[in-house]
Amino acid sequence: MALLPSTMRAAVITAPGAPDVLRVQDRPVPEPGPGEILVRVRGSALNRADVLQRMGRYPAPPGVPTDIPGLEFAGEVAASGPGAERWAVGTRVTGLVGGGAHAEFLVTHQDAVAVIPEALSWEVAGATPEACITAYDALQQAGAAPGEVVLVHAVGSGVGLAVVQVGAALGCRTYGTARSPAKLDVARALGMTDGVVHGEAGWVVAAARRWTDKRGVDVCIDLVGGPYVAETVPAMALHGRIVVVGTLAGQETSLDLRYLLGKRLTIRGTVLRSRPLAERVAVTEAYARTVLPWLAAGTVRLPIDATFPLARIAEAHALMESNATTGKIALSFD
Amino acid sequence: MALLPSTMRAAVITAPGAPDVLRVQDRPVPEPGPGEILVRVRGSALNRADVLQRMGRYPAPPGVPTDIPGLEFAGEVAASGPGAERWAVGTRVTGLVGGGAHAEFLVTHQDAVAVIPEALSWEVAGATPEACITAYDALQQAGAAPGEVVLVHAVGSGVGLAVVQVGAALGCRTYGTARSPAKLDVARALGMTDGVVHGEAGWVVAAARRWTDKRGVDVCIDLVGGPYVAETVPAMALHGRIVVVGTLAGQETSLDLRYLLGKRLTIRGTVLRSRPLAERVAVTEAYARTVLPWLAAGTVRLPIDATFPLARIAEAHALMESNATTGKIALSFD
Repeated sequence: MALLPSTMRAAVITAPGAPDVLRVQDRPVPEPGPGEILVRVRGSALNRADVLQRMGRYPAPPGVPTDIPGLEFAGEVAASGPGAERWAVGTRVTGLVGGGAHAEFLVTHQDAVAVIPEALSWEVAGATPEACITAYDALQQAGAAPGEVVLVHAVGSGVGLAVVQVGAALGCRTYGTARSPAKLDVARALGMTDGVVHGEAGWVVAAARRWTDKRGVDVCIDLVGGPYVAETVPAMALHGRIVVVGTLAGQETSLDLRYLLGKRLTIRGTVLRSRPLAERVAVTEAYARTVLPWLAAGTVRLPIDATFPLARIAEAHALMESNATTGKIALSFD
Repeated sequence: MALLPSTMRAAVITAPGAPDVLRVQDRPVPEPGPGEILVRVRGSALNRADVLQRMGRYPAPPGVPTDIPGLEFAGEVAASGPGAERWAVGTRVTGLVGGGAHAEFLVTHQDAVAVIPEALSWEVAGATPEACITAYDALQQAGAAPGEVVLVHAVGSGVGLAVVQVGAALGCRTYGTARSPAKLDVARALGMTDGVVHGEAGWVVAAARRWTDKRGVDVCIDLVGGPYVAETVPAMALHGRIVVVGTLAGQETSLDLRYLLGKRLTIRGTVLRSRPLAERVAVTEAYARTVLPWLAAGTVRLPIDATFPLARIAEAHALMESNATTGKIALSFD
């Protein structure tokens, strides 16, 4: 540890509030515990959860820094804790954490990281895990099979675009919804078959019937929640599966049980952040096995809308809240 | 076919309405088509769907008599259609049909029946398939595992009591809700750990927390629907699964997505009646493999509250609508 600094720069939430409550401050470099590694962060990205955490609406889970946001990272192994012998110093690794990635160093369990393929830059490797793991995991939970029709709400978000690309890699036909035609254009350029802009009551079922010759969609990955769930239920095919990943549009919905029973639908909720270590290890291993090779080969791409240095973290938050971006907002270090 | 009569007695819905629209009339004995068998019905039972069909609210699916209710049967193979060589005349078989079981004869596919173990009477064999197949199938769809906690709404119904017994046979701890303490007593005598009578808002979660040391229930088989779904969601454990099988209490519910996501819940709807032949064959084979041996051994019992001869079908319907029964209402023939 001799060559490591004792302090690091970190994006710190000084109080709940607007983007300007974020300050880049000096913090002690964390110490890796048993089984843990210290990672020198080279790339990261923003997620909606960072904004909610900054507002005081999404506290960090136990065991992670309470005031440093950041859920994904790419970086080099800088040191290892007791018994953590898996990786040599300098190994390029990427993964998810419950928080703390918007800092120059973080600690994580040695089994909760994946080795970064050579072809991937720090910027890409740091901006893809959260979106791609969420997308792949949600599609797996939905049992999305080749030839099936997948609909994703908020297709212009990082996770939305990842569903389009990962869904296509799994052999699915993908459709999406967004608040603006420009976001649909980006998704189309990434392989989305068709999309529709948010509309009047019945807009989802109308689009789904048009796209599927009235059969309905097999899988919906819903990043929006609220009334979108109720709009989506009649748009599903027999045996359809809805996986709700986000609730930006609200936490209450109505549910018409006639469709649920008659079409034998499944609705499931999921979150990544609060999962225990064993599950975080499992989704990271799946990411290393499937999506990382696709990213390295260019089969899966995830657009980066803008990249900010850590010092401009408040601007990055403000941009995310504008809802004007399509794809990821990345963070760079140094 | 020489010894078979050309006409049979059947319970016929003469018009949509109250129980007295049911008349026992003469009908032609149906002809088994390719792959089908003719069954001389010896036992059957009522289901809620029969009442709804009589009221004109649940039309028969395609391919079954439109005006003769009846979803389950036990009887003897009386004749076989072209290519249906699987069963000898006289074989005792039981199964589900989409309708037409409340008559002296019915036709069904030769692969959609199970052989009745010797130990079972016509009365029991004719009154158990619908409840036990629904219960077993719902518990399977929920992935109910040994040691898990299973809650069933409307535990006093045939399906409810079957969930208690089949759930116990699968190694689960079962709990139930009902509209009256007397129904809970019957369920307790059949192995239900504990139960609660319908109450004020929050009643399900309060009982579930008491039963599980605040952990919540793993599986809910919901035969009631409507507001019960919203009441049940907060009562579930992490990774809980709700399977909605009935909507007696209504077809609309609200859904709190905070619980759906935070607890990573799954809500699924299911129906048996409209399933295609291949699926009906599969659930019948599962019934033959698992529940029928349990019924024969006495591991699983399903109480029969009353038995009516076919001639008194209207009384049987009136009794079911009274909601005063616990367990099955059986029909006898001859």
